[in-house]
Amino acid sequence: MTESYFMNLIKKRKSERSYDSGHEVADGCIESMVEAARLAPSASNRQPWHFIAVKDADIRKRICREALGGIVANKFAFEAPVIFILCTETGFSAVKVGEIVKGIPYHLIDAGIAGEHLVLRAAELGMGTCWIGWFNGKKIKKILNIPKGIKVVSLITAGYPKLRNEGNGPGKAKGASVPEISTPEKRDPVKKRKPLNSILHWDKW
Amino acid sequence: MTESYFMNLIKKRKSERSYDSGHEVADGCIESMVEAARLAPSASNRQPWHFIAVKDADIRKRICREALGGIVANKFAFEAPVIFILCTETGFSAVKVGEIVKGIPYHLIDAGIAGEHLVLRAAELGMGTCWIGWFNGKKIKKILNIPKGIKVVSLITAGYPKLRNEGNGPGKAKGASVPEISTPEKRDPVKKRKPLNSILHWDKW
Repeated sequence: MTESYFMNLIKKRKSERSYDSGHEVADGCIESMVEAARLAPSASNRQPWHFIAVKDADIRKRICREALGGIVANKFAFEAPVIFILCTETGFSAVKVGEIVKGIPYHLIDAGIAGEHLVLRAAELGMGTCWIGWFNGKKIKKILNIPKGIKVVSLITAGYPKLRNEGNGPGKAKGASVPEISTPEKRDPVKKRKPLNSILHWDKW
Repeated sequence: MTESYFMNLIKKRKSERSYDSGHEVADGCIESMVEAARLAPSASNRQPWHFIAVKDADIRKRICREALGGIVANKFAFEAPVIFILCTETGFSAVKVGEIVKGIPYHLIDAGIAGEHLVLRAAELGMGTCWIGWFNGKKIKKILNIPKGIKVVSLITAGYPKLRNEGNGPGKAKGASVPEISTPEKRDPVKKRKPLNSILHWDKW
């Protein structure tokens, strides 16, 4: 099997926890990331997702202090120049009925799909991202004025990685809006994963 | 914003509901698709996913008859040469505790992320796929001998699209394992989606 652009892209993506806070993310890049999410498939094409792109430093600080407070592991979020708040509509619909009948909240699967489109587009644009699942949803809703019927599902930080000693990461290509992804990511080894034969079953379990 | 390989790939992907049932999917392609899923991020790197690649015609028929029966919209699944059963481990763990505390079953978001990696890799390989959310999970577990503690989250059909009159789709490139994606997909217009400004909010809702 020939190595592919897409396989390289998903290997390039990693959960980035160190951002260059002074390197702003252009609005056009944010729009392109959400555009990638917009084109994602969803149950019955319901498209339940919303993305709030929080760039404002004061609002980001409030989110980090009030909704991620006390979680040491998430302190890196302070540095990220953008925090995406991924929300879904949870109102009544045929899909909602299906969720109740089948016991599977499809809107969360849809959120995963769309959010990962955003994350992979960010990787293509030379940015790092990190999914954050541990937060205080009620506080975020209050800070951002999110209405009833909308659930905060995940946070995704985004920005250019902080330069490290070796300096060959995408963070160096500050001027380039779409850096090539062919450069080997020396500091970006694929995180430890279970072996393929432990997750792939043929025909039966 | 320059058009990108990844944006083209996600535009190429569509929910395929018409397969060339005689065009088998090579095991190497199936492995590559699950490899893409394997590299996906997950909450606390828990990797809760399992993929059962059902190629056997008799088992596929049983699934379609017994677990998708009566759902007219899913009849296309009979034609797909592979049906992936996407499952997740639902056992006790720190993440599970988080799910209970926060009310968000992260394993479903993780399943969406990993499943979409598989779907996009399939698109890169010239295949069509379709997420199926409406099925009888208990019957599928019985047919496939899926143990306790494992939840069937979604089905994903995969295969080469049936040739249509215009014949320029990826289904034509029968011999090529990795068709180029630069060819415009005339018969693959992006499904209707909400406009960007209705799902992207800046700084606050």
